[in-house]
Amino acid sequence: MRQSEILIPTLREAPAEADAAGHRWLLRSGMIRQLASGIYSYLPMGRRVLLNVERIVREEMDRAGCQEVLLPIMQPAELWEESGRYDQYGPELMRLKDRHAREFVLGPTHEEVVTALVRDEVNSYRKLPFTLYQIGTKFRDERRPRFGLLRGREFVMKDAYSFASNWEELDRTYQAMNTAYSRILERCGLNYMRVEADAGTIGGQGATHEFMALADVGEDTIVSCGKCGYAANLEKAGYQASSLNSLGEKGATILAGSELKHDLQPDSNSGATWTRIETPGIRTIDELSSFLNIGAEAIIKTLVYQADDKLVAVLVRGDHEVNDIALKQVLGVEELDLADEAALAGHPELAVGFLGPIGLNIPLVVDRDVAGMEVAITGGNEADIHLSGVRPGRDFPVSRVESVRFATEGDGCPSCGESLSFTKGIEVGHIFKLGTKYSDAMGASFLDRNGRQCAPVMGCYGIGVSRLMAAVAEQYAGEDGIQWPASIAPYDVHLITLSWKDEQQQKLTLELEQQLMDAGYSVLLDDRDERPGVKFKDAELIGLPVQIVIGRGAAEGKVELGSHVLTISGDSKRISMAAQEAVDLVKEQL
Amino acid sequence: MRQSEILIPTLREAPAEADAAGHRWLLRSGMIRQLASGIYSYLPMGRRVLLNVERIVREEMDRAGCQEVLLPIMQPAELWEESGRYDQYGPELMRLKDRHAREFVLGPTHEEVVTALVRDEVNSYRKLPFTLYQIGTKFRDERRPRFGLLRGREFVMKDAYSFASNWEELDRTYQAMNTAYSRILERCGLNYMRVEADAGTIGGQGATHEFMALADVGEDTIVSCGKCGYAANLEKAGYQASSLNSLGEKGATILAGSELKHDLQPDSNSGATWTRIETPGIRTIDELSSFLNIGAEAIIKTLVYQADDKLVAVLVRGDHEVNDIALKQVLGVEELDLADEAALAGHPELAVGFLGPIGLNIPLVVDRDVAGMEVAITGGNEADIHLSGVRPGRDFPVSRVESVRFATEGDGCPSCGESLSFTKGIEVGHIFKLGTKYSDAMGASFLDRNGRQCAPVMGCYGIGVSRLMAAVAEQYAGEDGIQWPASIAPYDVHLITLSWKDEQQQKLTLELEQQLMDAGYSVLLDDRDERPGVKFKDAELIGLPVQIVIGRGAAEGKVELGSHVLTISGDSKRISMAAQEAVDLVKEQL
Repeated sequence: MRQSEILIPTLREAPAEADAAGHRWLLRSGMIRQLASGIYSYLPMGRRVLLNVERIVREEMDRAGCQEVLLPIMQPAELWEESGRYDQYGPELMRLKDRHAREFVLGPTHEEVVTALVRDEVNSYRKLPFTLYQIGTKFRDERRPRFGLLRGREFVMKDAYSFASNWEELDRTYQAMNTAYSRILERCGLNYMRVEADAGTIGGQGATHEFMALADVGEDTIVSCGKCGYAANLEKAGYQASSLNSLGEKGATILAGSELKHDLQPDSNSGATWTRIETPGIRTIDELSSFLNIGAEAIIKTLVYQADDKLVAVLVRGDHEVNDIALKQVLGVEELDLADEAALAGHPELAVGFLGPIGLNIPLVVDRDVAGMEVAITGGNEADIHLSGVRPGRDFPVSRVESVRFATEGDGCPSCGESLSFTKGIEVGHIFKLGTKYSDAMGASFLDRNGRQCAPVMGCYGIGVSRLMAAVAEQYAGEDGIQWPASIAPYDVHLITLSWKDEQQQKLTLELEQQLMDAGYSVLLDDRDERPGVKFKDAELIGLPVQIVIGRGAAEGKVELGSHVLTISGDSKRISMAAQEAVDLVKEQL
Repeated sequence: MRQSEILIPTLREAPAEADAAGHRWLLRSGMIRQLASGIYSYLPMGRRVLLNVERIVREEMDRAGCQEVLLPIMQPAELWEESGRYDQYGPELMRLKDRHAREFVLGPTHEEVVTALVRDEVNSYRKLPFTLYQIGTKFRDERRPRFGLLRGREFVMKDAYSFASNWEELDRTYQAMNTAYSRILERCGLNYMRVEADAGTIGGQGATHEFMALADVGEDTIVSCGKCGYAANLEKAGYQASSLNSLGEKGATILAGSELKHDLQPDSNSGATWTRIETPGIRTIDELSSFLNIGAEAIIKTLVYQADDKLVAVLVRGDHEVNDIALKQVLGVEELDLADEAALAGHPELAVGFLGPIGLNIPLVVDRDVAGMEVAITGGNEADIHLSGVRPGRDFPVSRVESVRFATEGDGCPSCGESLSFTKGIEVGHIFKLGTKYSDAMGASFLDRNGRQCAPVMGCYGIGVSRLMAAVAEQYAGEDGIQWPASIAPYDVHLITLSWKDEQQQKLTLELEQQLMDAGYSVLLDDRDERPGVKFKDAELIGLPVQIVIGRGAAEGKVELGSHVLTISGDSKRISMAAQEAVDLVKEQL
């Protein structure tokens, strides 16, 4: 392709909207443009990258035995009412009415459509198992679209849905998809981790894993163990209960040994109770910690939740955070939110900002690490009062002990006990064992080998195709542009002819183009009437795997070769060599 | 692909919704399913056909030097307000609001988005010309979705937009697209005609052509000449004014020679005026024609239109129909509709059902064929009265004579005078010279070679990709299913193994599969545990180009070959031959 004939509107500066390195380069290299918040146009170079990713995804899905389909974007709202997601999905679901005022949604995923299809078309175990997939545009009205293609409102996704007679069949498909996903991400050159995850809005009854691209702009936290390879997202991550006693002692040590601003020790050693401390206007853990000059780990944080229609108090250590998802599972409730003022109105003993576990008359869930504390500081359930010297078990009941906090960096790995590390990740893929959630809700069934009516056991599997492209851009963002991996680069080779009007340069360029194209490589040819500086700058922005510069040396059949994927001997960015040598190097290594 | 592993839900009966042969077979062969009116899911076999069409379209677009992009489905309403189409498009435009109540449309086409893009990114003649295209989902809220994929509300389209410095450049691109479109339709095996057309809602200032698949279910009428090759759609079709005098005489002959129920001759021959005929309750041309026992071609039909804010009367012969689009152009108005009662209220002389040209005090447009009539029957502008012996020019003014009727079958070809024929067609492609309609409206401009600011001259080019698939289905619909052309068939070869459990049959099948796949053919293999009758029935429904039946003959290495694309010697539907011979035949001819 001649560069004079293709639309590549490079920019000197990134637009103000650009909030991540990869996103900036995608804009500056003329690959994408924003049309509206979270909605992007793919220009020719960006479309080529996206098509490459789509091709890899399609090849691996086909290899895994999946069948491609194309399901509608516009879905009748009734289907979503059947599954219960029409209300549940909330404002992220794009909704519209047709000319007859019939309600539709723009599909963010296709569980409803595909389950309805299978309900109508598949009624025997002999047609199972199978997996359907599609590559297409999805919609999610994000509250806060960010980082360009990473969190958009209209995006390209590969979604797949498997249907099996039983859980064993589902397990096999799940494993096959796991392998396919790993292959896809590896082929795209992505540095990623596969982590245990939580099922979120999609719901499901079995295992679920996320594939995370590692990147500082990632909005997810990956908890992982460098020793045994355990990895999970923060919501799902476990940790060892090694803290059970030691942290309690640590707390006591702190209480005993710190240079405290106040006397926090109980009045006597035997049969002593807690000490009241006046803490005027001190409401947060941070404030309390600095007011008392004591670590947050010596403090117990008391939170009151509205769990479905009841109030529940939860205790975690001051340096820990409650894991809502874990808490929801522990309590077995649908709705969980911090109790608001209205909910607290009937409980005058609950003094917001000074909550504590002593004397509460609502159910109490004690985090495992709190149960392990020997002595602690808590709120006094009275304005401007905290208590020190509080002992779990003695001063408040620890009858219900659960793990309800997020893991923290340095916690013991749940598998091997080694110290856990935290990394930021971008979720690019997600595989779920859905079980019969949707088939039950929507009444899909088949007759098994014995003529019994059963619900198909489902799995679903998503890859954010445009997000994957953006994640690669993020990981391969360099000083002057994105250095695209060869597998998804818009073109393989960039021929940069410094003076297109020069006959020898033009002739050599066309010879090289022909040779490379005959060998199956795609070529971008800079034939523009621009200064070399402009050409080099644009070439860096575009970031093709191989650059061959045809300049004055053309008279002697010499070119300069630069590449971020080929192994070339020599120190400088571009190495001078015979034109044929450059072609041979490409053929050998690319 | 093993048939036991792919979802092909064939049906014994077509659903009631199926209203065209191709559509019935697409449903019965398990290729598509309706999700909502005009909205379809493509199942694995249907998706494969669609992917094949997409591949052919992409290859030809790339060959024509177009650049692929991907533009958003969700488009801000403001862009459509800029172009003026937000109101103009009417209820066919799908509209929605996001969570911030911002208005969007679901793109039926992308002129606005692409013009806005070029406005922002292209400012010099040196970047022109270029053509952008995309293949994607489009939305149009049809009042009456019909014929499955032929007139849907969500459909797959290839749309392309060209930008040029001047009309000569546009002409070259238009010609290149014309060639590409012909190649695409030929490669898909479609029987089609390229016809002159009208620009419709898209608008435009230059030529426009439609590519019509010939089919009885087609909703468009193609007017064509078998001698010189002239072809146009009915709205646009011309015809020769050969009727100018002869039909007038014919009318006179009819008046003179018919056995009339009434005396229609004027009272005297010199200076005579018309005759009043009592025609109680006779309001339509048909009624009048049979009441008077006279051909409709002897009657003048008078129609009153509301043209923008004025009333206009139009006269056409009773056997002709007014061409609204031609009339609109003749009058130079934006809005044109038959005048309703409210509009007629101020004109008591206009007696609906008995309208005539005599004594009207609104402007009169006389169709060329009416101007050529010597004498005629008209309405009397009085209830229950018609007039005979009316002479154009004498009894009413023929100062404004225009061609404002549709061509009729048998009219003279506008190019060569030969008789015109009518055919039904499905519009599968449309190419437009838009000119500067959108660039002017949206303020896109570039600096030309002399530094002058100019508006890019645009073209736009659409192919209904899913409609093209449906048109092929319509043309290739046979007695038992669709006999797919090899270029877009879901698979090349169908291996039908009558007893998969039979070792020899299975062994021979797998050998054939391997040989065919090694040679690059795609193979569907019926390994199901079904009776031969079921297998044959499904195979006919699926309609692959080649069927190889592996049955009892497998023991001697014999198979039966059937095909609607290969040339095979022999009379019966399937010919017995050695397995190797079958493979060789495929390799030679497919």
